[in-house]
Amino acid sequence: MSALHVIKIGGNIIDDSKALTAFLEKFSALEGNKILVHGGGKIASRVATDMGVPVQMVEGRRVTDEQMLNVVTMVYAGLTNKQVVAELQHRHCNAIGLCGADANAIQAVKRPVDKIDYGFVGDMLPDSVNVLSITRLLASGFTPVFSAITHDGKGQLLNTNADTIASSLAVALSVSYQVSLVYCFDKNGVLSDVNDEDSVIDTIRSSEFSALHANRVIHDGMIPKLFNAFDALSKGVSDVYIGHARDLHLYQQQKFGTRLIA
Amino acid sequence: MSALHVIKIGGNIIDDSKALTAFLEKFSALEGNKILVHGGGKIASRVATDMGVPVQMVEGRRVTDEQMLNVVTMVYAGLTNKQVVAELQHRHCNAIGLCGADANAIQAVKRPVDKIDYGFVGDMLPDSVNVLSITRLLASGFTPVFSAITHDGKGQLLNTNADTIASSLAVALSVSYQVSLVYCFDKNGVLSDVNDEDSVIDTIRSSEFSALHANRVIHDGMIPKLFNAFDALSKGVSDVYIGHARDLHLYQQQKFGTRLIA
Repeated sequence: MSALHVIKIGGNIIDDSKALTAFLEKFSALEGNKILVHGGGKIASRVATDMGVPVQMVEGRRVTDEQMLNVVTMVYAGLTNKQVVAELQHRHCNAIGLCGADANAIQAVKRPVDKIDYGFVGDMLPDSVNVLSITRLLASGFTPVFSAITHDGKGQLLNTNADTIASSLAVALSVSYQVSLVYCFDKNGVLSDVNDEDSVIDTIRSSEFSALHANRVIHDGMIPKLFNAFDALSKGVSDVYIGHARDLHLYQQQKFGTRLIA
Repeated sequence: MSALHVIKIGGNIIDDSKALTAFLEKFSALEGNKILVHGGGKIASRVATDMGVPVQMVEGRRVTDEQMLNVVTMVYAGLTNKQVVAELQHRHCNAIGLCGADANAIQAVKRPVDKIDYGFVGDMLPDSVNVLSITRLLASGFTPVFSAITHDGKGQLLNTNADTIASSLAVALSVSYQVSLVYCFDKNGVLSDVNDEDSVIDTIRSSEFSALHANRVIHDGMIPKLFNAFDALSKGVSDVYIGHARDLHLYQQQKFGTRLIA
């Protein structure tokens, strides 16, 4: 099987145009099949504020009503996605910007209303990823660049977590490729002390994760990412790395951030 | 050569959600290779106003400064494009939404500053269209849906006229396909009296066009579209039609609007 890199880039890097450009330079230089998934960044909140769309939070989580869905569709699938694609094309990476509706690449389901109605938020299912469509794009020499917007197949767009999109793509495509999943953000890796960038944990084995989690060694914000990552490893993804966007060029030399091992 | 339909849908239909849905239903039903190009609509001006971005006009034409480019990228390539794609997917049309940067499909040049600086506006060149990329997407079974945003290949997005994009795509792809170019808008066709929807001119031959133009029979707003259309016919496009979006299902029966003949 040929190799495929699924790279996730987080919102903080998206917001910093210099850091983003440096990252895209390194992403372009990666050889072989690759996919980029980008998070949202703060631009959506800024646009929402400018447009007078209220930002609704319930128990610390954002609610996506119709107006907010329009804003995130504009910003994530429009502005950010197309700026990233234009920069990648400039660097001779044949990028093609997609949301989940494009080529029916990712179909999610609207999160059921339980205690809280999160609005137009999409949850991924095991068969959400259209392997055939994405494989065709890769085989044509394109580099898919996904924003975190999906659809339900009935005409409704849905706001969806970018980390989950990245891990779901990695898992689904591992039937056809040897997949490495790489989470890039603005820290050097998984840190044992969130305030010390030198405290990178080199490797975390699945068997060690529960203890690290229980002892609260790992910062809360990392926990969902790590759950996603170990889940991906258990479902066929070959490698998972978490590290600083600035260091992406080191990942193929295995000198990048934290390596997770099944 | 196999047939290819290049369909342009205008801004007035984009703004009318019922008319748009009815049109997308008919577009989905068209058999064979097809491409949709959509105009902007008034949503961009509304978003610009909401965001406090001034709409600048010089000699009746819109100037696209950096802020306005961001707005049209958000609205055309983001909101409108993805809503159209999601609706088409719902109707089992395997749409893939693109701007010109995606797959390097359309590379334009920033309009040179002469008396007026139009800002980030892109003009099409004879080799602007990447036939190889678009042919690969069509051969994979996808239906490309283009917003009217292109790029310059150096990382800069550009606002570009949707009619010109449609005719340029039609011309370029006529090396590989038998191309029909269909302009859909909110009139029954080219009218000899702009206030009378029953005054549709059935066919216009290239040889008749100058006289109709000189005698001011044809409404000013139609003139650039007709120049585009006759130019496309002279450069290899097989058929050009101009008619009402509502009647798209009649076009393959040659009962649609005005037919232009080389």
